[in-house]
Amino acid sequence: MNAVRPRRVSVIGAGRCDEAVYETARLLGGLLAQCGFEIVCGGLGGVMTAVCQGAREAGGRTIGILPGDDPAEANPFVDIAVVTGLGIARNVLVVKNGDVVVAVSGGAGTLSEIGIALKIGRPVVALEHFDAIDGVIAAKTPQQAIFLLQTLVPDTNCAESY
Amino acid sequence: MNAVRPRRVSVIGAGRCDEAVYETARLLGGLLAQCGFEIVCGGLGGVMTAVCQGAREAGGRTIGILPGDDPAEANPFVDIAVVTGLGIARNVLVVKNGDVVVAVSGGAGTLSEIGIALKIGRPVVALEHFDAIDGVIAAKTPQQAIFLLQTLVPDTNCAESY
Amino acid sequence: MNAVRPRRVSVIGAGRCDEAVYETARLLGGLLAQCGFEIVCGGLGGVMTAVCQGAREAGGRTIGILPGDDPAEANPFVDIAVVTGLGIARNVLVVKNGDVVVAVSGGAGTLSEIGIALKIGRPVVALEHFDAIDGVIAAKTPQQAIFLLQTLVPDTNCAESY
Amino acid sequence: MNAVRPRRVSVIGAGRCDEAVYETARLLGGLLAQCGFEIVCGGLGGVMTAVCQGAREAGGRTIGILPGDDPAEANPFVDIAVVTGLGIARNVLVVKNGDVVVAVSGGAGTLSEIGIALKIGRPVVALEHFDAIDGVIAAKTPQQAIFLLQTLVPDTNCAESY
Repeated sequence: MNAVRPRRVSVIGAGRCDEAVYETARLLGGLLAQCGFEIVCGGLGGVMTAVCQGAREAGGRTIGILPGDDPAEANPFVDIAVVTGLGIARNVLVVKNGDVVVAVSGGAGTLSEIGIALKIGRPVVALEHFDAIDGVIAAKTPQQAIFLLQTLVPDTNCAESY
Repeated sequence: MNAVRPRRVSVIGAGRCDEAVYETARLLGGLLAQCGFEIVCGGLGGVMTAVCQGAREAGGRTIGILPGDDPAEANPFVDIAVVTGLGIARNVLVVKNGDVVVAVSGGAGTLSEIGIALKIGRPVVALEHFDAIDGVIAAKTPQQAIFLLQTLVPDTNCAESY
Repeated sequence: MNAVRPRRVSVIGAGRCDEAVYETARLLGGLLAQCGFEIVCGGLGGVMTAVCQGAREAGGRTIGILPGDDPAEANPFVDIAVVTGLGIARNVLVVKNGDVVVAVSGGAGTLSEIGIALKIGRPVVALEHFDAIDGVIAAKTPQQAIFLLQTLVPDTNCAESY
Repeated sequence: MNAVRPRRVSVIGAGRCDEAVYETARLLGGLLAQCGFEIVCGGLGGVMTAVCQGAREAGGRTIGILPGDDPAEANPFVDIAVVTGLGIARNVLVVKNGDVVVAVSGGAGTLSEIGIALKIGRPVVALEHFDAIDGVIAAKTPQQAIFLLQTLVPDTNCAESY
């Protein structure tokens, strides 16, 4: 039977992003996978692709919860694509399926996910942009985000300490 | 057959509030009804009750979209209670059913609705609190909010000008 | 404040239908309105249009819960259009918002709604087609359906007895 | 990057079942896994547990899409638990995430899923009970269900032929 379920981090952020943000999210994905976290995300482009790529390169598992009906819309680094047909309401599922939420850049969609997370009691760590929101914990780097997650999520086991 | 559908305003805000916020939301509801707007809201307490009360006192119609399965959870000033059983995902429906969104105070749930609104292109007017968010239009008073709505929503017909 | 909420009947059925089915659904809508029922339906064509037309002609109120995002997709006899953007998942909301369900003809979508209704404990009366399903109560005519509803829904007040 | 996505079968059925149905579903799960199918199900008890147990025993992967918010509600043979908080509306996601649907026994909830499947064009194979429904393909045994799936789903690769 299954042992302890792996911890999950919902990573949210811009569906399109520049190279610097992409590399930040990819680094974050790799670090999360090294700590044994599964990635949950919206399954599409930008930060979602980057974090999945980073996690996969580090041997992690990635879950993409899609707004539409076609699993082929998932980015190529999604291991488990879940279609919903719910449109933007799938944001709720992205948030609910993580033990904690990390935001990397992003706009209004990301803002909606932060609101949902805070409403249902998920801790939110933000790299850039959203640190002015009450209740959001700011991180300057992916390493610092991982450091914060170790205090927020019980039983996190990172290979190194950050 | 039906003529032109009435314009709708989604009013979002705190589920619990103090008397000053309550009176602001009630005044807003009355002014909205006088302009011919239907009210859409989450159907529960605080600002949702206040705006429905104000609208009803001014002869307006109110729609409450509930997170649960029991229409009796709607506040007593809701004319049309719609149950969803969707939990917090009902926030998406609250936003989608308005032509424009007005926020009155509120916390994380309201923040999630502002994010959804901005994401799907609904104009957002905020009384207090959320005016720091990119894309949100700040109003200092209900009268000013109505004035802004007249410019945002075509064919608004207010009895007086604000 | 509001008095007793009006009873609601969810009417489900084919999105396209022939004239005979249309007239059956229209007659049903009129009879339901005369008994003080509000109509809840999926808001689109065929049986949904017919039952709304019948109810409106008899002075009743009609609620259409739409799969998409555009209230203009509602048929012209819908008083209150509720958009969901949930696609076929809106069928759950159509069922949940009635105290009882009446099916008029229909195919797979209607079958899904009957399953949902039986699962959550809503009585289901079917005109044609679905009477072979365990738990569905068969009616041969709209008048007979109304007669059954009077026994299924407390405090129904029909102008005449059927 | 990812190669071809694995084919998925949504297995639906009774949340509580007797030992004979359990063994049928468990056998089905094993055969599906041997053909390389991933299992999608509602993640709870009865047939859902049985099919996941069978698939896991044969080395397959199982996805459980839950109605509630707690991943611990998933049966112990679910590899990937997806919480939704959508209640019975999660049935839509269970169906949408399979390329094809197999029903094993079941009641009203299963009936709703069959309706949804037929509505959105998923082939439905039923072991027992639902073979009277238009469009449902009846199978007498799990082996026969697998045989049918080989014709319904392109590129199925079963170790043996059934």
